Amino acid sequence: MRSWWGWGNEEDALSGVELDTLIRRASAALPGVVFTGHQPPAVADLDLAPPRVSPPAALAALCSTTPLDRASHTHGKALRDVLRNLHGELADAPDVVARPRDERDLVDLLDWCTTAGHAVIPYGGGSSVVGGIEPRVTGYPAVVTVDLGRLNQVLEVDPTSRAANIQAGVYGPHLEEQLRPHGLTLRHFPQSFEFSTVGGWLATRAGGHFATLATHIDDLVESMRVLTPVGVSESRRLPGSGAGPSPDRLFLGSEGILGVITQAWLRLRPRPRWRVGTSVHFADYTAAVSATRTIAQSGLYPSNCRLLDAGEAYLNAGVSVGGGVLVLGFESADHPVDEPMRQAVEVARDHGGTVPDPPQRGSDDAVRAWRASFLRMPYQRDALARHGMLVDTFETACTWDRFGDLHAAITETANRAIRSVAGVGLLTCRFTHVYPDGPAPYYGVYAPGRWGGMIAQWDEIKAAVSETINAHGATITHHHAVGRDHRPWYDRQRPDPFAMALTAAKRALDPAGVLNPGVLLPQG
Amino acid sequence: MRSWWGWGNEEDALSGVELDTLIRRASAALPGVVFTGHQPPAVADLDLAPPRVSPPAALAALCSTTPLDRASHTHGKALRDVLRNLHGELADAPDVVARPRDERDLVDLLDWCTTAGHAVIPYGGGSSVVGGIEPRVTGYPAVVTVDLGRLNQVLEVDPTSRAANIQAGVYGPHLEEQLRPHGLTLRHFPQSFEFSTVGGWLATRAGGHFATLATHIDDLVESMRVLTPVGVSESRRLPGSGAGPSPDRLFLGSEGILGVITQAWLRLRPRPRWRVGTSVHFADYTAAVSATRTIAQSGLYPSNCRLLDAGEAYLNAGVSVGGGVLVLGFESADHPVDEPMRQAVEVARDHGGTVPDPPQRGSDDAVRAWRASFLRMPYQRDALARHGMLVDTFETACTWDRFGDLHAAITETANRAIRSVAGVGLLTCRFTHVYPDGPAPYYGVYAPGRWGGMIAQWDEIKAAVSETINAHGATITHHHAVGRDHRPWYDRQRPDPFAMALTAAKRALDPAGVLNPGVLLPQG
Repeated sequence: MRSWWGWGNEEDALSGVELDTLIRRASAALPGVVFTGHQPPAVADLDLAPPRVSPPAALAALCSTTPLDRASHTHGKALRDVLRNLHGELADAPDVVARPRDERDLVDLLDWCTTAGHAVIPYGGGSSVVGGIEPRVTGYPAVVTVDLGRLNQVLEVDPTSRAANIQAGVYGPHLEEQLRPHGLTLRHFPQSFEFSTVGGWLATRAGGHFATLATHIDDLVESMRVLTPVGVSESRRLPGSGAGPSPDRLFLGSEGILGVITQAWLRLRPRPRWRVGTSVHFADYTAAVSATRTIAQSGLYPSNCRLLDAGEAYLNAGVSVGGGVLVLGFESADHPVDEPMRQAVEVARDHGGTVPDPPQRGSDDAVRAWRASFLRMPYQRDALARHGMLVDTFETACTWDRFGDLHAAITETANRAIRSVAGVGLLTCRFTHVYPDGPAPYYGVYAPGRWGGMIAQWDEIKAAVSETINAHGATITHHHAVGRDHRPWYDRQRPDPFAMALTAAKRALDPAGVLNPGVLLPQG
Repeated sequence: MRSWWGWGNEEDALSGVELDTLIRRASAALPGVVFTGHQPPAVADLDLAPPRVSPPAALAALCSTTPLDRASHTHGKALRDVLRNLHGELADAPDVVARPRDERDLVDLLDWCTTAGHAVIPYGGGSSVVGGIEPRVTGYPAVVTVDLGRLNQVLEVDPTSRAANIQAGVYGPHLEEQLRPHGLTLRHFPQSFEFSTVGGWLATRAGGHFATLATHIDDLVESMRVLTPVGVSESRRLPGSGAGPSPDRLFLGSEGILGVITQAWLRLRPRPRWRVGTSVHFADYTAAVSATRTIAQSGLYPSNCRLLDAGEAYLNAGVSVGGGVLVLGFESADHPVDEPMRQAVEVARDHGGTVPDPPQRGSDDAVRAWRASFLRMPYQRDALARHGMLVDTFETACTWDRFGDLHAAITETANRAIRSVAGVGLLTCRFTHVYPDGPAPYYGVYAPGRWGGMIAQWDEIKAAVSETINAHGATITHHHAVGRDHRPWYDRQRPDPFAMALTAAKRALDPAGVLNPGVLLPQG
């Protein structure tokens, strides 16, 4: 049973010993802070405004106006979303949640909404952390959230080219389940994997499993099929093309404002047969960053190359070391990978890294601890949030030459904001992806909150770090998208002529202006 | 001295023994065909229409209307361009050739043209083979070709992130010359390397040196600066970003219709210290294709993985073998590459390939012969064209599952068209790039022409194969761009809603409609 208010499944939420342990650890880390558990309200008690519209009879069977459906489609899964749910603040619930069974249904739904002028919010797994699927729109008679969850089939597999035609509404595990009999995998594992969809990944340019090489979903796209209000846009399946600007790249990251992605041919690979992982400890963070950069620029292409700073290593991998831990992994379906691992470890050692044990095949404790923790993090976040802890993340990317200054500035800004709003707290950093020309650092914030005022507390921290990111020429998001929450900084980041082009493109494809208003571009 | 009518430098054109040998070989291959050499007309005899406009006084110093400048900026470098030049057919010469010294000049030039309604053709090296820089426009009072050649500096190098800010008008060799003192290289070597520019590569999504991994110039872009009639669009230097659709990807491949690219931060790498190359011979082409596909999907990432079919191997590498030659290479600045080469050769052997000699470091004769031939090909093409030979190329890309059928259909169509227009001739094929999900095959046509009728002959062949490419769902171009010549097939390839979006974007950025009219989109 999916949680309407928090991450994932209700039955997987922290409870019992796991919950007690987490709260005990948090208490130990924040002496003097009192943790009080709060329960989410019952859906029946939410007192949602009545839906402002009834779907036409022909579409009624696709549409739901139950409080549970409306409540669970109101917010994404950021801290501020969970907090508003916990506080019963659901003023912007969609009027209708529609679940098309096929593209024909989707055409009918779009026709209804464009004719009536209802805002349409394309909805995948709802794991947005940037207000991307939130009906925070004004000036529309109603808001219809279109949940693509029924379009969940792998339609065709091409084993020769290693690609599959996949419907947009399929969730990660169900996708992999359908690919498994073919011996293939997309191997795209964002943290949200279990609760996000292919269409969502495409619409938001999700970042995936691999720390190096093709990892943004963008690079896995052979072709896309997008239903726009003016017709279907379907690109050809091509391994590469130079015929004009890429049509797919216009829709990748378009976050539902240009059309609804219904299918895509994505590039697959066989499951890895050879895997090796290890972790390297550093006494000095600057040396650890240098080592990571050198490996990222080496052409060795590790599948995992995630540098955890000291706080991240301690909190999530149980390792206490001053300069952080570099988690390294190599994998291949074709050939052994011991040699590149040996070379990467040699680079790390050249920079002062130490390997606690000799590299072992997939058996490194720190790696395993971190990976297990990775998937539990969102559930832990919810548990802590329910107990009044500010726990959330922000992320960016920058070139290597700027990372030192940016990281220092973010650390300073975030710590100042944390002190200002919470008195004490912790900031952690890890690299989720590394490129030859720069890392994608990902920050975690842990601080005690004031129940009832936590959203304002978080917003103050988030705004402060976003200003710093912007001022240092970094991106407001490497893989969390823009949505509604990142707009103030995105508006300063994207070139003005590009915004003019995107606005014109939106007007051409969505003349009624009904698609996800307020995302990426100003409403109306 | 650049040739106004043909490829490259006048002094590098084939002559003497090299020319005699080539013609003798062609005669031997086509017994009974008489080869008569034709000379290009003198520029003074071209009788160009007088320029229809005089530049304003303030811009006069940047502008040229000399017959040589106008003639050399009239056509690209396709066979049909060279033939029209040889026949003195330059009806569409630009009225003015402008050479801005900096962005300020460029702004002034654009202001003049948008105000007066003159068509503007952004011009890099002029090596287009698709009519991309050809003033084939109607309804404009004049055409001004803007040659970016003076914007030729590397403005800044970031050795830490390995990137450089490069002006768009710099040619390949001059770029590498400026990067060399920094120990870095772009390592982007299209066949046109010597006579094409960074801006041209970006505007046309050029394909580069590497057979696998990042090779399209698209993937080497950190940020771009584009001067549009409504303002400057400059993206941030980022190693990766998920903030909305990529602004750069809209301008990459825009072929001058949205703005003029003036600078870009591009990703660099150190020069390779380890290199190894070899060639593998195949008795059977299907087995050779399978071997190539398996290597492309292996994750070994050869720098070179070019399958030459029997005709290509014979003509350009001097190797006689029934199933073709797979040219393999690995390179790295960081570590030895013998092991991946050993593994790739093992794959090739598993598919029936034989290695004439054991792999040797960069000393393989067939590889060297082919590489030397590669750079002489355009000069040879000109020499043969002057002697009445139809010699040109076309290229595409498709997924592996479709390659067999596509290749068979192209072979049949091309051979039928060659027989129809020329009686006899030869079709060759090589893969210029290979992706895990498909190859980019590149075809060469060699046939005797009828002097005076060769353009019509070539156009018949080209139209026939383009129809076949289109019918098989392949792309009309992998790395030669669309220009004006590929429009009929591009128009059927790109999704209609994308064309609507691109049209709207163009109207927003180029409201006067002066930028490269007729390229990618219909005029007006």
